[in-house]
Amino acid sequence: WAPRQLRNGEQAIPSGQGQLESAGNLHNLRLAAGIGEGEAIGPVFADSDVYKWLEAVAWEYARNPSEDLLERQRELTAIVADAQREDGYLDSVVQLRYGDEGRYQQLVWSHEHYCAGHLIQAAIAQVRCTADRGLLEVAIKLADHLVANFGDDKTVDVDGHPVIEMALVELYRETGTQAYLDLARWFVEARGHGIISNHGHEPTYFSDRVPVREAATVEGHAVRAVYLAAGATDVALETGDAELLEALKTQFAHMWATKTYLTGGLGARWEGEAFGDEHELPSDRAYAETCAAIGGIQWAWRMLLATGDAKYADAIERMLYNGFLAGVSLAGTEYFYVNPLQLRGAAHADNNRSPAHGRRGWFDCACCPPNIMRTLASLDGYLASTSADALQLHQYAEGAVAADLPGRGSVGLKVETAYPWDGAVRLTVEQTVDGPWAVELRIPQWAEGATVNGTPTEAGEYARIEREWSVGDVIELQLPMATRVVAADPRVDAVRDCVALERGPLVYAVEQSDQQADVDDLHLLPEASVASSYDPELLDGVTVLTARGRAGTGHQAGAWPFEPGRTDQVGDEVEITAIPYYAWANREVGAMRVWLPRG
Amino acid sequence: WAPRQLRNGEQAIPSGQGQLESAGNLHNLRLAAGIGEGEAIGPVFADSDVYKWLEAVAWEYARNPSEDLLERQRELTAIVADAQREDGYLDSVVQLRYGDEGRYQQLVWSHEHYCAGHLIQAAIAQVRCTADRGLLEVAIKLADHLVANFGDDKTVDVDGHPVIEMALVELYRETGTQAYLDLARWFVEARGHGIISNHGHEPTYFSDRVPVREAATVEGHAVRAVYLAAGATDVALETGDAELLEALKTQFAHMWATKTYLTGGLGARWEGEAFGDEHELPSDRAYAETCAAIGGIQWAWRMLLATGDAKYADAIERMLYNGFLAGVSLAGTEYFYVNPLQLRGAAHADNNRSPAHGRRGWFDCACCPPNIMRTLASLDGYLASTSADALQLHQYAEGAVAADLPGRGSVGLKVETAYPWDGAVRLTVEQTVDGPWAVELRIPQWAEGATVNGTPTEAGEYARIEREWSVGDVIELQLPMATRVVAADPRVDAVRDCVALERGPLVYAVEQSDQQADVDDLHLLPEASVASSYDPELLDGVTVLTARGRAGTGHQAGAWPFEPGRTDQVGDEVEITAIPYYAWANREVGAMRVWLPRG
Repeated sequence: WAPRQLRNGEQAIPSGQGQLESAGNLHNLRLAAGIGEGEAIGPVFADSDVYKWLEAVAWEYARNPSEDLLERQRELTAIVADAQREDGYLDSVVQLRYGDEGRYQQLVWSHEHYCAGHLIQAAIAQVRCTADRGLLEVAIKLADHLVANFGDDKTVDVDGHPVIEMALVELYRETGTQAYLDLARWFVEARGHGIISNHGHEPTYFSDRVPVREAATVEGHAVRAVYLAAGATDVALETGDAELLEALKTQFAHMWATKTYLTGGLGARWEGEAFGDEHELPSDRAYAETCAAIGGIQWAWRMLLATGDAKYADAIERMLYNGFLAGVSLAGTEYFYVNPLQLRGAAHADNNRSPAHGRRGWFDCACCPPNIMRTLASLDGYLASTSADALQLHQYAEGAVAADLPGRGSVGLKVETAYPWDGAVRLTVEQTVDGPWAVELRIPQWAEGATVNGTPTEAGEYARIEREWSVGDVIELQLPMATRVVAADPRVDAVRDCVALERGPLVYAVEQSDQQADVDDLHLLPEASVASSYDPELLDGVTVLTARGRAGTGHQAGAWPFEPGRTDQVGDEVEITAIPYYAWANREVGAMRVWLPRG
Repeated sequence: WAPRQLRNGEQAIPSGQGQLESAGNLHNLRLAAGIGEGEAIGPVFADSDVYKWLEAVAWEYARNPSEDLLERQRELTAIVADAQREDGYLDSVVQLRYGDEGRYQQLVWSHEHYCAGHLIQAAIAQVRCTADRGLLEVAIKLADHLVANFGDDKTVDVDGHPVIEMALVELYRETGTQAYLDLARWFVEARGHGIISNHGHEPTYFSDRVPVREAATVEGHAVRAVYLAAGATDVALETGDAELLEALKTQFAHMWATKTYLTGGLGARWEGEAFGDEHELPSDRAYAETCAAIGGIQWAWRMLLATGDAKYADAIERMLYNGFLAGVSLAGTEYFYVNPLQLRGAAHADNNRSPAHGRRGWFDCACCPPNIMRTLASLDGYLASTSADALQLHQYAEGAVAADLPGRGSVGLKVETAYPWDGAVRLTVEQTVDGPWAVELRIPQWAEGATVNGTPTEAGEYARIEREWSVGDVIELQLPMATRVVAADPRVDAVRDCVALERGPLVYAVEQSDQQADVDDLHLLPEASVASSYDPELLDGVTVLTARGRAGTGHQAGAWPFEPGRTDQVGDEVEITAIPYYAWANREVGAMRVWLPRG
């Protein structure tokens, strides 16, 4: 992850500020701050992109402090503070377009709480990572304004786009102000009763058809749905609401079993950027918005902390390495909004967001790029956690982990690994405390045959190694890196009779530039063995898989495609080369498939 | 077809007038006519639904004259005439919302030419079927207004939604006014140069990316695309433009080979109601709008007249019996907007148009219902044609065909058949002329082994029987009605390793109410024989197919659906019952599949 984070810090974040400038987001805030004259530009949620970017800056500063980042942060924070109204209200687009009377009048689409949520998240990152309190003061004033205005005996309404829920809970954690938690809970409970209606979409779109505590699945707009679920998980955790947590477990399990792509991508439909029905998972028209993967990671992280169940860490790994990481180019500055599992050779880019365009520098609706920036910059936070007597390692990456065991002092581990290319992870104790404590290592569900210090250990759980540690003690974790040829539940109609390749946490894809035959017609011979080799030159260094397959022969151009008695012919044998899915579309944009028909 | 037409006339058309009343379409026209006060209601294209309904009334009058129909027609025609401005302009919604200055300012979305086109089509039907000239006078004034306002040295713009092209050519045929043909040609040629842009959709959506004469496929909004192609075919025919006709042949062939469902349904995507990429034909998310099938029929009919190629009549048959007919309930008064080839048991109706709701009485965007009415009422027009010395029968239905052989007099045939349930068609000459003339009978491509008077004849062509005919002469056509088990081109990923059942012109579907096992898991044993039997009680009388299949066992509820080494298990053998696709969702709305996995 280090090179990706480096490029995020060196390239993407500075270039992001330029994009926010040229797209008008900063222009709006400056106008609201009384600097210059003009009208608001761009979508109503324009402020949120600035806040996501500010959050990225703060996390990046924690990773790699620099005066340049602080200066950028302070410059933009000052504008935001000046844009805030005296009573605490803040939303530059609404202020400019609709004035004071326009506040909270069109919450279904105005994204006022959504922008507030991102502001609060940025403020918390800022104070934690840089100790600057500028944005936090703005956030508290705004949160107080929300508390003063929303609730049973005040305005009874919710924002069309969740995120405020998790932001308010985190602000409660930061400040201890109970009213923020209460309001977050109120927002979670108020939703799901058709409170949003008659706005061109049915309540399903807004996760407003069924209350969170009663829902058995996720539905509607995917990013909205998982952001809401993440916030509801926070509320359940902080209020000890076991019923709500149970409902969220059910929803996550149903999503994972029936509405999640192999890549961890979420959202099967372009129409409404939405979850589809159960098992509706088309490869070609997968929407799998990058922001939905990010929201999925955020939800899974909260479920992991709430339950300690390794399956949520597995889910995070799958989403991080595949559905999320494909959203950004190796260079770090081009983005996919939409992440399909198949692109046909003749695909026509008829839409601004079409993957057939390749990744793009920015979008009219630019939610994804700064969301990626803040996620890459804050990745470290998803790697480990502690409990009373243990340090948990959830994800494996080269580096060092230091943490406090509550009441006992600091412990630290050095992590040496070439993961995900190699399954060997060597952990060395660098700092320890008196008495026994445990290291808990996630053994991914896919890692059947894993060993810890040579001893076999169960997949899908945490391997716990408890002892009194001395500096220099070593743990050797070995995760098997055999290639896996996976097939789908027969109800997943879209990939019937197909297989896909996985190795370690990575889903693989075949891309036209590596193939001898037309990707649209390739078949994989699943019984054939798959070879793997690391190529340090290719795509910043990837392990490439090669397998035997065959070219197709059944396709007849120009013919009516549905005929009696048609059976596929056996085509020529060819070698098939697969690269990690996340790395596709970094050379040229051509045909790509994750799922290959069985040969 | 007779019972369907009867219900269309007796039930649907009268109830349609009520819907136009309650949805506000007539309200708008009355307001524009100076009757009452208020604001326009509903979508900008509201007038067009009234015109389609008026067209249906006229065709229905030709089938089955009644004073009631004439009265309805005259009442509404009078309102339309009064709504027209003195200079010929007419569009009630634009008049009411935007006034004279608003005319043609937002053609991309205003549908002003679209409404004009439907008005012209209704007017021509009216004068031809009822001899009333009221609407024709309105139409001519409006067409003259268009001629005065659009062209190279006038306003250079085209409507976002085609239909005006075919309407103007037909008005030219009706009146002989060359200017109408010229303007139709101008509209066809002006399009495809990005003349429509910056309107939230890329030019692809409006068929405005590539000029019709250069395009190699259809793309974008499916109804827009096929309406445009139909109008361009009219223009090519009337102007003798062979290059344009060649381009249209290429486009039709490409559409038919790569972007058409087994049902003849057109449009793979909900997003933009659009054609997808080549071979992108998902069963579950098929859009296949009923209006697109209607437009496809209109285009294919024009291609048939232009070329005499039987494949276009085959296409009409496929679209009529399947993609079109599924759009209306057996009762005639409930409609599908969207016609998928699969509905899962757990499908959630999250959208007004979702097929999971079942057919509905009307829609906010009510383009389909009156379009179905005018198509059913005018179906007779698609059955037969004449050339200098021959009568062509394109479609087979019980009834009588009478036609003039140019310059020679009238000929007539009685058609006796139980088609599509039985393949025997008995034709008896009821009227003839001196000297030899020919009967040309389309032998569908699927009808391998067809015979005419016992002699084998080639499928996919017209069988020509030329002689001097006497009244009472009989032709016996025998079309084989064996069930066909069809499979798809391997590039159609969505139905890999699946089969579907066809019999005669009908595509079949399995519906939950007829099955022993869960439709979501059913597999068909394609090598097993399929039995057929006519059930006069079921669904107004249908031939039912029964075959052997097996229930699924591979699905594990709640599990991550993608696993290494997964193979389907063999489930219990079950009997599978299939009904004609057009008849689905007439009992209850449950799981349905056209394509079944191979067992």
